[in-house]
This record gives sequence, C-alpha cells and structure tokens, in this order.
Amino acid sequence: MYGAIEAGGTKFVCAVGNESGKIMDRIKIPTTVPEETMAEVISFFKKYELTAIGIGSFGPVDVNPESEAYGMITSTPKLAWRNYSIVQAMKDAFSVPIGFNTDVNAAALGEAVNGAAKGLESCLYITVGTGIGAGAVVQGQLLQGLSHPEMGHILVRRHPQDGYQGKCPYHGDCLEGLAAGPAIEDRWGRKGIDLVDQQEVWDLEGYYIAQALMQYILILSPKKIILGGGVMHQKQVLSSIYKYLPKLDNGYVTLPELSEYIVSPGLGDDAGITGSLLLAHQAYADAIQH
Amino acid sequence: MYGAIEAGGTKFVCAVGNESGKIMDRIKIPTTVPEETMAEVISFFKKYELTAIGIGSFGPVDVNPESEAYGMITSTPKLAWRNYSIVQAMKDAFSVPIGFNTDVNAAALGEAVNGAAKGLESCLYITVGTGIGAGAVVQGQLLQGLSHPEMGHILVRRHPQDGYQGKCPYHGDCLEGLAAGPAIEDRWGRKGIDLVDQQEVWDLEGYYIAQALMQYILILSPKKIILGGGVMHQKQVLSSIYKYLPKLDNGYVTLPELSEYIVSPGLGDDAGITGSLLLAHQAYADAIQH
Repeated sequence: MYGAIEAGGTKFVCAVGNESGKIMDRIKIPTTVPEETMAEVISFFKKYELTAIGIGSFGPVDVNPESEAYGMITSTPKLAWRNYSIVQAMKDAFSVPIGFNTDVNAAALGEAVNGAAKGLESCLYITVGTGIGAGAVVQGQLLQGLSHPEMGHILVRRHPQDGYQGKCPYHGDCLEGLAAGPAIEDRWGRKGIDLVDQQEVWDLEGYYIAQALMQYILILSPKKIILGGGVMHQKQVLSSIYKYLPKLDNGYVTLPELSEYIVSPGLGDDAGITGSLLLAHQAYADAIQH
Repeated sequence: MYGAIEAGGTKFVCAVGNESGKIMDRIKIPTTVPEETMAEVISFFKKYELTAIGIGSFGPVDVNPESEAYGMITSTPKLAWRNYSIVQAMKDAFSVPIGFNTDVNAAALGEAVNGAAKGLESCLYITVGTGIGAGAVVQGQLLQGLSHPEMGHILVRRHPQDGYQGKCPYHGDCLEGLAAGPAIEDRWGRKGIDLVDQQEVWDLEGYYIAQALMQYILILSPKKIILGGGVMHQKQVLSSIYKYLPKLDNGYVTLPELSEYIVSPGLGDDAGITGSLLLAHQAYADAIQH
C-alpha cells in the first residue's frame, strides 16, 4: 500500500491507496506549524504498512535530487515552513522510498494517468486560486529543468480598461498578480463568491487566463489543458477563455475543439492526492530498479 | 555514414557525417522550387552509402508520426513548398530510415549533444533572424506535444516608447512581429547591418527578447539558453538582455550567472546541420529497435 500527502498552505490531505491511484483511506489536517502538522501526518500513516510515500507540496520547493536543499519547501511566505524538509521528516519516520514534487505537478500526473488527460503523453494542469501555478507532463514525464516551472508568474498584457495595479510582490501585474483570487477581491472590493453575478469580473478573468494559455500552447504545445482551483469553479471563466483564445491565436495554431481541449479536472478535487499516490508508485519502481 | 539536411527558406545545407555529429562533406543548395532543389539534394547524397538521413526543416511542418501529413512542410508562405512532403521525397530516393523535425529542434539537439549545452538534459535554442523560432530539449528528448512549439509568436508587452505596429500577419505585435529582422528594418527604415552603431536599436531588441526569455524560463525552466540567428550576431543584444531580464524577474526565480546561462551557439552556424545528423542517428537507432 502507498501513502500520499497533498501538502497545501491551508491543509494537508493524507491518503493511502494503490498503484492505480485508488484511495482507500484519507484524512485532512490543518497546516499550522511543522511540528504539529507533521506529527498528525506521521500518526495517520503509522496505522498502515506502507511500501512508499509520495508528496505533492506547496512551494516553492527544491525538486532537484542533486541539490542539497532537495525535499525542502524553500522561500515560502509561510515562515514556519521556510527551508523545512518535508522529505527528510518523512524519511526519519518511515524507511521507504519517498517521491517528491510540487502540488501542481502531482495534479498534472494524476490527470494524465487517471483523469481528463488519461492516455495522453502530455498535458498541462493549472490551478487558479489563492495563487496561480501549473504542472506539466511532457512525453510521459513531469516537466523539470533548472527547477520546476513557475508558470503563474508569466507576463500578460493588461486589459485597456483594467486600472488595477496588480498584487504580486515580485512582478506587480504578472498573471498571478492580476488574476489570482486575492487580486479579484482586491480589484472589485469583494470576495469572488460575492461577485458570482457580475459578468465583467469573470470576463476579465478569462481575458487574462486566455493570454496565459496562448503562451503555454505556443511554448509547450500540450495535448490537453486542465484548469482547476477555486476560481475555476466559476464556469463563466471557461466561456470567457473560449471567447478570447481564438482571437489571440487568430488562426495561427490549429487548435482542437476548445470545449474538449481546455477542460475541468477529470478527478475533481482529487487530482493532487491521486497524483501523489502515483509519485509514491514511481518512487517505489525507481528504488527496486536501482 | 549518415546524411543530413538543414532545409532553410533561402538555402539547403546537405552534409554527410557520423553518429557523433562530425561532418565529412557538405554542400549548399539554393531553395528554389522542390523539383529543382530536391534533385540537387538527392544527387549529392547518391555519391554516398547512407544508413539513415536526418532532416531539420523550415516550417511549419507536421512532425507527428501518426498524422497523415507527417513529413510535410505545411502552411508556409513559400507557395511552391506548401504541403510538400520532404520526407516522402527522400524515402522515394533512398530506402533508409528518415528522421524529421524542425530546423530549430535540430539545432537544439545539436547544441545539447555537441554544443553549448553538452552534458545537460535540457536546453532551449532560439533563432532570431528572418523569423523567430525555438526548439527545446526536455529531459533529453526534443519537445513535442500537440505539434512542435511556435515560441516566436508569444505575446510581449510593447515598450512605452515603441510606436511600431508590428509585422506578424497573424498577431501584429507578437515577439516575431516586433523583433525579427524584417521588423527591425521596417521600424528603423534601414537594414540591421546599417544600424550597427545605433545603440537604441539593439537595446530595444534585447528589451523584447528578455521578455520572451522570462516567459520561457517560467514555463520550461531550461538548463541553458542558446541564442542564434543573424540578428544575434549583434553582440550588443546579449548585453541588453542581461540588463533587462533581472529587472523583469526581480529576484523571483534564482537565475544562474547570466553570461553562462544565456549564450551564443557552441557550434556556431553548424548547430542545425549537426543536429540533423543526430536525427539521422536517432532514426537509425529507432529502426533497428523495432
């Protein structure tokens, strides 16, 4: 049996399941400080006989196995977790192989194996919520280079009628700075949930996300694009994306039927935890090979 | 011995060489119409006993082996070559495995195996010339998804003092529309070669390319970025990129030393033809495996 952790900034989801991503038991634990949260995580898993553990974590994280900081949550604004090695903590408690990646890469893997991109060797998973992040499967593998991607911070062109200055502490009006949940609340003065009927809010949201998708498509050419996260629960955003993306592309790239190409997660809110189970399976397979 | 074709819009470079990318003989043939150009290509290769042929072609091309149009140059403005299958032409003349990809993907492969990115499992090769295109090696393989990347057409933010409207027939002021050779000539009223001393020309060029690199880094996280093509012969552009990129990133992504991270091709103008030889080797290796 495999263990899986979807480590988020608000809560940790822990689950046990099999190599196909089927979940048998799960628990939610609030994200407080490492000593407290991790004690509960470890106590949950101690009930089971695990062969490997997979972790999909909030970040930024160090996912380079050759780096000294491998397994750490690095420059997060959540100070108690800064430079905390979640991988080391699990290794100390369990003598099994540990798989580790970003939460969005885990979700991309989950969707590629069991969700909306099942059977495809490439896909992009984007979450639009408190922040904007994305993970990608390329030729069957999670995308990784110098580091993991940071696609939420790409530059977009501001809408001519949008005077909002942007909320990203690094880039001001990058995609995350203009289109993540906190930016919506800041721009319109109310939480997204209280703006459901204001069409212009979701039209503008789609305007920015469509620009991002245009860049992702030109650069990565994914076979499926999956949009998750709290903001995407407003289905009007998808309609707005379908409206703006063809205008931006203007017939240059031959896009598939948009309603089948750009979709909601096939696994719903379970993409991340399912992918983390698959990370456990990969870690186990790697370990027996070496 | 392997054969290699670097098929460009102005000229074809044909070469023979070995599996390490070492070139033993080569020829340049003007790109006129397929019957004429390909007759010379075939006659050059007929002098040799070839085991496989690799082709890196101008595009757009269809590189999906499952597609009916595989091996074709598709919607090119060079009408005589539109929907011409360069792979089929070579298959008809030589009964050997044929490798096929874009010119920039071939160049990326050449640089990853023998050039500036030797020993790295990821790199990005960008050419800035008559057009702007890029190829990428990701985890040791050429990047391919729905199609090959079209990174030259990403959206950039216009410089506040740049009133030029852009030259891309599809997107107007996308990167290629603002920063490829013809845009430089159009904006300043003279060819790039006659503008060498005008610092503002190359400063603006770097301003746009730095924006593109920022997006590529956030999305792909390549381990090395290689800039080739005619415009990049102006080394002032590199200095301008080194100036603007850190301002855009603002400390968010930890970038390596820029003068070692963003570099000129290690193979000079031979990146594409060397990569095409390596495509031949891959095609041969694939064929004996199946």
